[in-house]
Amino acid sequence: MPTSRELIDLRSDTVTKPTPAMREAMASADVGDDVYGEDPTVNRLEERAAQVFGREAAIFVPTGSMGNQIALHLHTRPGQDIICEARAHVLDWEMNMAAMFSGCQLRTISADRGVLTWQHITEALSTAGLYYKPQTGLVWLENTHNMAGGTVSSRAVMQEVIEGAHAAGLPVHLDGARIFNAAAALGTDVATLTDGFDSVNFCLSKGLCAPIGSILVGPRAFIDRARSVRKALGGGMRQVGILAAAGLIALNDMPARLHEDHSNARLLAERLGSVAGLRLEAMPETNIVFFVVDGGAPGVVAAMREAGVLASAVGDRRIRLVTHRDVSTEQCERAASVIAQILTSRN
Amino acid sequence: MPTSRELIDLRSDTVTKPTPAMREAMASADVGDDVYGEDPTVNRLEERAAQVFGREAAIFVPTGSMGNQIALHLHTRPGQDIICEARAHVLDWEMNMAAMFSGCQLRTISADRGVLTWQHITEALSTAGLYYKPQTGLVWLENTHNMAGGTVSSRAVMQEVIEGAHAAGLPVHLDGARIFNAAAALGTDVATLTDGFDSVNFCLSKGLCAPIGSILVGPRAFIDRARSVRKALGGGMRQVGILAAAGLIALNDMPARLHEDHSNARLLAERLGSVAGLRLEAMPETNIVFFVVDGGAPGVVAAMREAGVLASAVGDRRIRLVTHRDVSTEQCERAASVIAQILTSRN
Amino acid sequence: MPTSRELIDLRSDTVTKPTPAMREAMASADVGDDVYGEDPTVNRLEERAAQVFGREAAIFVPTGSMGNQIALHLHTRPGQDIICEARAHVLDWEMNMAAMFSGCQLRTISADRGVLTWQHITEALSTAGLYYKPQTGLVWLENTHNMAGGTVSSRAVMQEVIEGAHAAGLPVHLDGARIFNAAAALGTDVATLTDGFDSVNFCLSKGLCAPIGSILVGPRAFIDRARSVRKALGGGMRQVGILAAAGLIALNDMPARLHEDHSNARLLAERLGSVAGLRLEAMPETNIVFFVVDGGAPGVVAAMREAGVLASAVGDRRIRLVTHRDVSTEQCERAASVIAQILTSRN
Amino acid sequence: MPTSRELIDLRSDTVTKPTPAMREAMASADVGDDVYGEDPTVNRLEERAAQVFGREAAIFVPTGSMGNQIALHLHTRPGQDIICEARAHVLDWEMNMAAMFSGCQLRTISADRGVLTWQHITEALSTAGLYYKPQTGLVWLENTHNMAGGTVSSRAVMQEVIEGAHAAGLPVHLDGARIFNAAAALGTDVATLTDGFDSVNFCLSKGLCAPIGSILVGPRAFIDRARSVRKALGGGMRQVGILAAAGLIALNDMPARLHEDHSNARLLAERLGSVAGLRLEAMPETNIVFFVVDGGAPGVVAAMREAGVLASAVGDRRIRLVTHRDVSTEQCERAASVIAQILTSRN
Repeated sequence: MPTSRELIDLRSDTVTKPTPAMREAMASADVGDDVYGEDPTVNRLEERAAQVFGREAAIFVPTGSMGNQIALHLHTRPGQDIICEARAHVLDWEMNMAAMFSGCQLRTISADRGVLTWQHITEALSTAGLYYKPQTGLVWLENTHNMAGGTVSSRAVMQEVIEGAHAAGLPVHLDGARIFNAAAALGTDVATLTDGFDSVNFCLSKGLCAPIGSILVGPRAFIDRARSVRKALGGGMRQVGILAAAGLIALNDMPARLHEDHSNARLLAERLGSVAGLRLEAMPETNIVFFVVDGGAPGVVAAMREAGVLASAVGDRRIRLVTHRDVSTEQCERAASVIAQILTSRN
Repeated sequence: MPTSRELIDLRSDTVTKPTPAMREAMASADVGDDVYGEDPTVNRLEERAAQVFGREAAIFVPTGSMGNQIALHLHTRPGQDIICEARAHVLDWEMNMAAMFSGCQLRTISADRGVLTWQHITEALSTAGLYYKPQTGLVWLENTHNMAGGTVSSRAVMQEVIEGAHAAGLPVHLDGARIFNAAAALGTDVATLTDGFDSVNFCLSKGLCAPIGSILVGPRAFIDRARSVRKALGGGMRQVGILAAAGLIALNDMPARLHEDHSNARLLAERLGSVAGLRLEAMPETNIVFFVVDGGAPGVVAAMREAGVLASAVGDRRIRLVTHRDVSTEQCERAASVIAQILTSRN
Repeated sequence: MPTSRELIDLRSDTVTKPTPAMREAMASADVGDDVYGEDPTVNRLEERAAQVFGREAAIFVPTGSMGNQIALHLHTRPGQDIICEARAHVLDWEMNMAAMFSGCQLRTISADRGVLTWQHITEALSTAGLYYKPQTGLVWLENTHNMAGGTVSSRAVMQEVIEGAHAAGLPVHLDGARIFNAAAALGTDVATLTDGFDSVNFCLSKGLCAPIGSILVGPRAFIDRARSVRKALGGGMRQVGILAAAGLIALNDMPARLHEDHSNARLLAERLGSVAGLRLEAMPETNIVFFVVDGGAPGVVAAMREAGVLASAVGDRRIRLVTHRDVSTEQCERAASVIAQILTSRN
Repeated sequence: MPTSRELIDLRSDTVTKPTPAMREAMASADVGDDVYGEDPTVNRLEERAAQVFGREAAIFVPTGSMGNQIALHLHTRPGQDIICEARAHVLDWEMNMAAMFSGCQLRTISADRGVLTWQHITEALSTAGLYYKPQTGLVWLENTHNMAGGTVSSRAVMQEVIEGAHAAGLPVHLDGARIFNAAAALGTDVATLTDGFDSVNFCLSKGLCAPIGSILVGPRAFIDRARSVRKALGGGMRQVGILAAAGLIALNDMPARLHEDHSNARLLAERLGSVAGLRLEAMPETNIVFFVVDGGAPGVVAAMREAGVLASAVGDRRIRLVTHRDVSTEQCERAASVIAQILTSRN
């Protein structure tokens, strides 16, 4: 097996390593105790994030899961329904904390490309106030939608959801872990794209390359309450400026290069499109490519690993490739060749 | 509008009133303080229920929801998945207590006729032990399946689920609110039909006509622990013998007459089968009939009520009729005529 | 050991059996399905209870624990403190549902005679809004206070708590399981005595002799929400009129006789006051007598049981006697003699 | 007011900033994606921590609160009691997560110097298995005990608790946020001092100066399960090696200098011992000094801040000073003078 240096790691954009500039910024960061609100660097990062998203306030959290779960907790009461898409991150990858921490049931709807429309949502709404039925408490969108293939929900679709939900008295949260990818794909900015959401969570790690951290944005009173929930979850860290220093670079400098990842994903998809023995799920809209094999996905992934290419099997038939800063165009070409060889020899 | 005396109430078998024999038994019941375990009548009822189901022990609870939620709580740990059918009572009619009280997510599968097979369940299982994914903790069946139309799961189908789940290290609970209806339809007894389930909950109210009460059966150690959870939920009542006296009659005398309700349900279905403007969902297997109209189900139900026939609208297009001891064959015939008139005049 | 007929049962007033009038009322009760709000008898009982307590609305629940926990849930959010006395029923006898169902910590204060004053409460308040500290969400009183010896909190003391709490923005709940005993002792009515509490729960069983049931009273919007929580907890029963029929008699006819129980308790205390080998904790204010022995309380209770007198050991040194309708004055005299004999021979 | 540079910050040892060596290590850390278990630096830190504590395994967490709450969750089931001292960190500073996340009630005992003995604990134990009483699930110690004044529990006292609890079938967790201070004070090592605890949590920040991070140690199977709970709480971070690099220096190099902080605390206490207008609570055993004023503690703290000395008011009468690496002996002398001046002029 190739050494770690030579591996082409397409498992996830979470594997990105901090850039040299980030390392330098972390080493020299001005820090303080953030539980006292005295870390100047994280304060700067939170102000900057609020500004970028056109929000009143922001709060730094160690993971996207924590940011999402804080928002979920603040928007709901125990016993409520939360409406989300059937492959949402909040359903499959956040350890059932909707139930475990907030006492809510995720009520799922399968939507084409993972794009939940207001029409979908109305089928699952429970807002008649019947005392003997669970009532809907929150609508949850994810953009880009990871497990649907990095797909993008347009502003128009989200706008209709926001308006419908608000008319029904319901808040709407955006899991925007990769919202900068969506904005890049749509050629818009995140403030415009996320306008109207009651809260938005986005990640500084993943495509933006920070080693650790996500940010939740929203109204000031909401973010003030979020500090209590973050403390409860064990996210009230001390000299956070170390991480925030990298986060500032991620937020300011990295969105501009995401189109490179999207371009590499398209390249991968194009190369794979003609390979026998696999079926591309769709042309990638951002940095995620899914292809389907006739069973045995884990075996294919293992063979790829032997050849120096890392990917993720999702169930027995789906394989996911994610492009990011630490994989070059040339490496994507090599990865496509490796996959073609394996699947051709397999047939 | 007709007086309450004249109403034909087909909304649910929960509306059944205690029989004269039940009222007499309640009035003369030998009672004691059940929190001290000293109520002789409820002790007799619990022993009898355990015997009827071929189980070690049983516990009386005020509602089927409480019995189900006690079992759910004891079989799981917070953060787990519970697999159930997409229209299950536990999902829509138990106030999200799976999440709220036990911290678990109900993971649903749509199954034809509401009959969940092992094949269905394997698609939703999560038992690989991955630390970063929610794991399945419990499999949940409902027989008869209320919202699918009082449908019956056969012993063979349930046997395969029990074997598959146990091989995967998972317990299986049966929401048997109407298990006596299933047994009557299959011509078997409940002990045979429910053999192998880790716990079974069934109702003394509904078709069996007791005013209040359900029973959870299982191994003795499980039922001992159930007493603590019942106390927690506020179900540790005092002179329960009053209710148990009616429950004994329900358990001993009422199952034998359920075939009358099934016969009445078939009669209803046959009469409705030829009515224009509605579509019968299926021939009833037990005591529940669903028919579909082209929208406006609440309006149809309101018109029926004007004519002295009560039914339930489920959403905008489905209407449910449930037969039971307090509705005679003649009344079912009248109800069918009323429905036919309304829908004919509506077209 | 004497037969059950001859036992003098002073363990608790929960052992009271329904009166003949109650049995007759239950047998002939007009009932309906309370989940649909159609049980006429429980509707009458709830209206009557609201009237007696001078409240907008009331809801019937199967146990006092359920009524208390519904109120607790509605008044709080997860993560809050609830302030109560150190021997409160809600702390020791409700299965930690404050934590388990509502996610709140009971923060206790030891108060002389169990009478919590506003002065006590201020020591435990946390209302400064610091984001990193749990905040107080509810103040909880119990009157009479069971484990402190059936002690009575005066209107003046409670008034000060209510005013202080409301000024601090906090609701106050009254666990009034035996509030009719308190009213009888104070020579007042329950509406006057409980004025200003945000919610009150009281029991129809215990001294009022109904077999099953408690009632939670409060503002109409609060009680409407209570119906959802009752359903969640599994307390949404069907033909509840059976129990409500007994409850109406308990509520209307039984309070007038509680002074007899208090008189019997004083008689017991006076007789025991001169017995060597025990120490009376205090002269009873209502129907509960505690005396202390030099260890081995369970052994004393066992010896009493041999002699036909049932009592409760609380820990190793305390023994509790509770008077009620099913124990006559003559039986209390006999019980005192039995205790005297046992403790004299023990010395 | 003096600039931040000149402030003498005695509020807490959490304010310590990373050392130059730590900053250098963070900048050059070898990192990977820890959710995949591939961060070499955090793996080294976890192995090293397990070794130092003589345990099978360890897990890095962003805060001590998260480490504590993971352990609490794994050791208990919802509805149980946890026994802890009345001023424990887990009670006052972890947002009631015992209740909110794990459904457990903290049952507190006031102990002299915060040192909980087995004798204390037996008074609060509930292990008789009565189905209608909450049962004890966990015993919780804190060493050093922060709010009791940085007090030290001896090995003998803890040994007796561990043996008693284990004999009763109960696990014992140690909140060892400052266990290295305890070991330094006792002249022992942490492996010896914490032997027998079912789990131990300790902090790399605080006196050990890392910017972020704590570690939970225990048996391998326990730590494997801890990874799931950490993920649930949102603590599954990515390139954690950045923080672990500083943590390794904290763990390896910093314990040796804690005696300096203890010496400075004694110096502070000695100087304050003779000041009129305050009363020293006790001679410090480690790095925490509490003194008491006649009310108005927040005003005193404000005056100290004006003079460049930061401290914490705890309630209206207690003031806490904590020594650490970023406060020199000379600064402690100046702080004592400032306090003396303020309190003298106040009298």
